[in-house]
Amino acid sequence: MSQTDPLELTAALVRCPSVTPEDGGALDVVQDVLQAAGFACIRVDRGGVGNLFARWGDKGHARTFGFNGHTDVVPLGKRADWTADPFGAEIRDGFLYGRGATDMKSGVAAFAAAAADFVTETPPEGAVILAITGDEEGDADHGTRALLDYMQAEGERMSVCLVGEPTCPDTMGEMIKIGRRGSVTAWIEVVGVQGHAAYPHRAKNPLPAMARLMDRLSSHELDRGTEHFDASTLAVVTIDTGNPATNVIPAKSTATVNIRFNDAHSGASLSDWLRAEADAVAAEFGVEIGMKIKISGESFLTPPGPLSDLVARAVAAETGITPDLSTTGGTSDARFVKDHCPVVEFGLVGRTMHQVDERVAVDQVHQLKAIYARILRDYFA
Amino acid sequence: MSQTDPLELTAALVRCPSVTPEDGGALDVVQDVLQAAGFACIRVDRGGVGNLFARWGDKGHARTFGFNGHTDVVPLGKRADWTADPFGAEIRDGFLYGRGATDMKSGVAAFAAAAADFVTETPPEGAVILAITGDEEGDADHGTRALLDYMQAEGERMSVCLVGEPTCPDTMGEMIKIGRRGSVTAWIEVVGVQGHAAYPHRAKNPLPAMARLMDRLSSHELDRGTEHFDASTLAVVTIDTGNPATNVIPAKSTATVNIRFNDAHSGASLSDWLRAEADAVAAEFGVEIGMKIKISGESFLTPPGPLSDLVARAVAAETGITPDLSTTGGTSDARFVKDHCPVVEFGLVGRTMHQVDERVAVDQVHQLKAIYARILRDYFA
Repeated sequence: MSQTDPLELTAALVRCPSVTPEDGGALDVVQDVLQAAGFACIRVDRGGVGNLFARWGDKGHARTFGFNGHTDVVPLGKRADWTADPFGAEIRDGFLYGRGATDMKSGVAAFAAAAADFVTETPPEGAVILAITGDEEGDADHGTRALLDYMQAEGERMSVCLVGEPTCPDTMGEMIKIGRRGSVTAWIEVVGVQGHAAYPHRAKNPLPAMARLMDRLSSHELDRGTEHFDASTLAVVTIDTGNPATNVIPAKSTATVNIRFNDAHSGASLSDWLRAEADAVAAEFGVEIGMKIKISGESFLTPPGPLSDLVARAVAAETGITPDLSTTGGTSDARFVKDHCPVVEFGLVGRTMHQVDERVAVDQVHQLKAIYARILRDYFA
Repeated sequence: MSQTDPLELTAALVRCPSVTPEDGGALDVVQDVLQAAGFACIRVDRGGVGNLFARWGDKGHARTFGFNGHTDVVPLGKRADWTADPFGAEIRDGFLYGRGATDMKSGVAAFAAAAADFVTETPPEGAVILAITGDEEGDADHGTRALLDYMQAEGERMSVCLVGEPTCPDTMGEMIKIGRRGSVTAWIEVVGVQGHAAYPHRAKNPLPAMARLMDRLSSHELDRGTEHFDASTLAVVTIDTGNPATNVIPAKSTATVNIRFNDAHSGASLSDWLRAEADAVAAEFGVEIGMKIKISGESFLTPPGPLSDLVARAVAAETGITPDLSTTGGTSDARFVKDHCPVVEFGLVGRTMHQVDERVAVDQVHQLKAIYARILRDYFA
């Protein structure tokens, strides 16, 4: 009876240089494993990025477990600072090194290995779907969205879905994500009238208005958290003017603000609030304030229930740790999947993700496969 | 009896390309005129810039009238936008065009011509000194300061001094400057801890503190003006961060603040205030705030009295306008001269100074020479 080694599979994936939007052969590596186990595989490439849809069992089965993940990785950062080949999958002192080792080639390897072995060894009553994208770290316009569009068009359906992103801050098993905060970014421009610093009454300095607006926004308490969410946060990430002359009042200044928000808000309600604050300051200071807003994702929640219970039990059984049900952190493709079916996220410790010398503990890769395998067994039991 | 033409002299000076620190032969042009009239001339060059000291009459005479001015000019700006050769001294429609035409080659030409003719035609009981620098528009470290250092060392002394900078906003004769506000510039750096925008509690964003500090500084009323001065003003001239990533909280941000202050303050009192404000905000936000301060000049005043009366009477006699005694505007070399002797400033309309197509009305150059000549006659009468 074949046992797919998740570490070998992780290593094979790390050796594929798949910095978004490049695939580097990564999806083929997964497809080979899944096809050998009887999965029907189809590439759902779109907009220059590769995506893989794989299903074992009957299409549209009422009991279909889905996994979602990505094989693309972020850029290397400062190559010279790496102590291992970023695409070498070197194993040293119990860690496998490489870009994507934690985020999230090991996650894809673990659920692909678990699913392949599971359907081979104990073919279930139902179906298993793997929706794997090559565009999660980039714009994500043609990644999981493309896979979900394909499924919608073809009548493919997951009953529930587990996203295999790294979710544990420090210790394997400590955190499941049952939702995510939303994200809104605003690019703000305050426009006044240039002039000489000695004659401020002849100019209209945009910077006092900018300072007031940024102070108002950053000192405002959006909320104190909700039942399942931390408090929403606002970060002024940059203010820029670019005026080198100490005797010149500048004509304009720009700033960028990023809000991570919980279910007390929506992208629209926050956009309205930002515009109202800007309008109030513009009126008070007699300047023009323009704003471009992008809603990267609304907040969402899969309330604690059967799916989170299933995953939490499997995690506890394999690690001895009862995971927290959390909604912290940034965004993930779960923000797309949640419109399709209940979704939670569980994966390994993400501490080195996006860093130089990204690495994964070898034993955690095996443990993750065991957790995913137990989830599948329990789901179909 | 020779009559020195101030327009020809202005044109000769404009034809010298004397962008600071270049002299372009300008000081020689003035020296030739003054030597021919019997002035003892000596170059007091220092730090790579040229300066000319010229005296007619006895050294150390108790009745010594001084003129101060500069022959260097600011850069051209956008050369393609000029409709005349910036060093061509073209006369068109009653205006002489060129860089320095108003600021202040015409001023130097007018007082050099007036002084040369005056000592030739009606040799006075006393002395006339011209202290002309080639470094007023630059750092000014080796310009009028070098001339004053030379005079101090050599026992040369002006009883009073007239600086020939353009002082009239719109109409010839409307304004004499009897003082100037001081100028302080502060370069401020707020340092926090970089982090991910989704995890602000793990970072320490410097920008809320920066916004608060800039808001506090710019909304503070320094004063409402004093007997001879407008209100002090503070301009935030730039705030910069340079963070292109919307999901990253930056580690630091910088800003520059320029204060123009009257005699209710000193450079030291304002430095103390700026540092106290920064310390208060740093403590409140838990960030570090560093500050570098430069006092470019203290405010000063030559109270209305004999010198301003003398100049005002001459202006009124030649133009029919009674000039205001003002302390508005930026800084000038009068900030150095005021430590040597009573000093006021009077010159022509400065509207096009530092601009493209800088130009001076031909008749105003002649009028300015006539005013300076009358001042000399009245002073020695």
